[in-house]
Amino acid sequence: MISVVLIGTGNVAQNLFHAFGKATNIEVKQVAGRTAAHLKFARDISKVTTDLDKLVPADVYILAVSDDAIPSVSSKLTHTRGLLVHTSGGTSLEALGNRRNAGVFYPLQTFTQGKAISFDDIPLCIEAKQPNDVKTLRKLGTQLSSTVVTINSEERQILHVSAVFVNNFTNYMYTIAESLCKENKVDFKILKPLIKETAAKLDHLSPLTAQTGPALRGDQQTLHTHLSLLKNKQHRDIYTLLSNAIKSKHGEEL
Amino acid sequence: MISVVLIGTGNVAQNLFHAFGKATNIEVKQVAGRTAAHLKFARDISKVTTDLDKLVPADVYILAVSDDAIPSVSSKLTHTRGLLVHTSGGTSLEALGNRRNAGVFYPLQTFTQGKAISFDDIPLCIEAKQPNDVKTLRKLGTQLSSTVVTINSEERQILHVSAVFVNNFTNYMYTIAESLCKENKVDFKILKPLIKETAAKLDHLSPLTAQTGPALRGDQQTLHTHLSLLKNKQHRDIYTLLSNAIKSKHGEEL
Repeated sequence: MISVVLIGTGNVAQNLFHAFGKATNIEVKQVAGRTAAHLKFARDISKVTTDLDKLVPADVYILAVSDDAIPSVSSKLTHTRGLLVHTSGGTSLEALGNRRNAGVFYPLQTFTQGKAISFDDIPLCIEAKQPNDVKTLRKLGTQLSSTVVTINSEERQILHVSAVFVNNFTNYMYTIAESLCKENKVDFKILKPLIKETAAKLDHLSPLTAQTGPALRGDQQTLHTHLSLLKNKQHRDIYTLLSNAIKSKHGEEL
Repeated sequence: MISVVLIGTGNVAQNLFHAFGKATNIEVKQVAGRTAAHLKFARDISKVTTDLDKLVPADVYILAVSDDAIPSVSSKLTHTRGLLVHTSGGTSLEALGNRRNAGVFYPLQTFTQGKAISFDDIPLCIEAKQPNDVKTLRKLGTQLSSTVVTINSEERQILHVSAVFVNNFTNYMYTIAESLCKENKVDFKILKPLIKETAAKLDHLSPLTAQTGPALRGDQQTLHTHLSLLKNKQHRDIYTLLSNAIKSKHGEEL
């Protein structure tokens, strides 16, 4: 049995709390957050506190707070023994200060308010200063997910910037398409099967092999027609830059 | 029963051929292609020909050839009666010449060599000059898919450029992430659950609401760290342009 204290009340904290609740060998001993109202999700099931000085003893303290808050909150946790980990992709291990038992427990996924996600296939990227702590995090992780990978801080940064491309920027591509559809009174919903299949294709193909479209084909006429349809200058700039990038990338590969 | 002649041997033609084969009220009377070897997928099940002068009579002739080839192939089909349609998102109805019975039968999906896709939830966008031909295409479409929408050429162009954003450009975001992972010996596979969830989120949220990330938060420190990790200038340019676009879009919305 691994005992856990969870610090934070956002999407990651809530999703972890529910996942730990389903695991047989993990006990969430306490959930801490600044605002009593935000602890609602936990208080019928677990002890809760708004006072970081009143944390109970536990094997692992999980700091699931915003990236900015990690250094300041962790500096207030000098009185806790046990392993302290944060859950951030973009934050180094050093943000937890110079305590001996520090680590990272980073679920590589996007969490949505009010939508519980199964942890089964969420990759958990773990890191810790002490080999024994890596073992503890691996035990904790395998209770939740079938993919637990040990990743150092540099590798985690690469995953984090990659996640910006495949999640944040991809979502922005969807946003542009939605606004084009709205402007022209076309139902954006019609594009959803294509969006899903674009992602699903990666089960069979590398994205390099899966690339299609007018830029790849060097189809200048379609590129011009498309640019003439885009009323927003930023959309045209994005269309041009990405089309040129596809052309030069696949030019290289020829 | 609707009788069909299919002209073309690429991914769209092959996927349509298999989907028509499963439908109860459609008969593929013939498949035509320039090269005998490319007709292999059809020749055990249907009549095939490499000679456009030898097309048999049918209700609908479906021209599933590359966009460039549509005008030249259709100009060779003056002897056929019946409705002639192309399957292209980016090509106007006029590319079929001035024949009376012309239309479009555009499956809005990405097709992969060797991967059969179920047509059930592929939106079929139809258009025709004559109301009766729209009816025929709707009948044909509902045999394959639960989503058949009548779309005019202007609306289809908007869907086509939107598809470039959500499919071609999104796939290029995956390509950049894969190359970053490769360069840094990180397993790209770890990002696949995130990629799928990014697409799946749209079942619950508009992409405008689903947007997350350092650009949205105005987190300059992470933006700088990410730029310093990108060795390729084009990747940095894309990162900067898309981050600025997200900032200004969501600035607008505040």
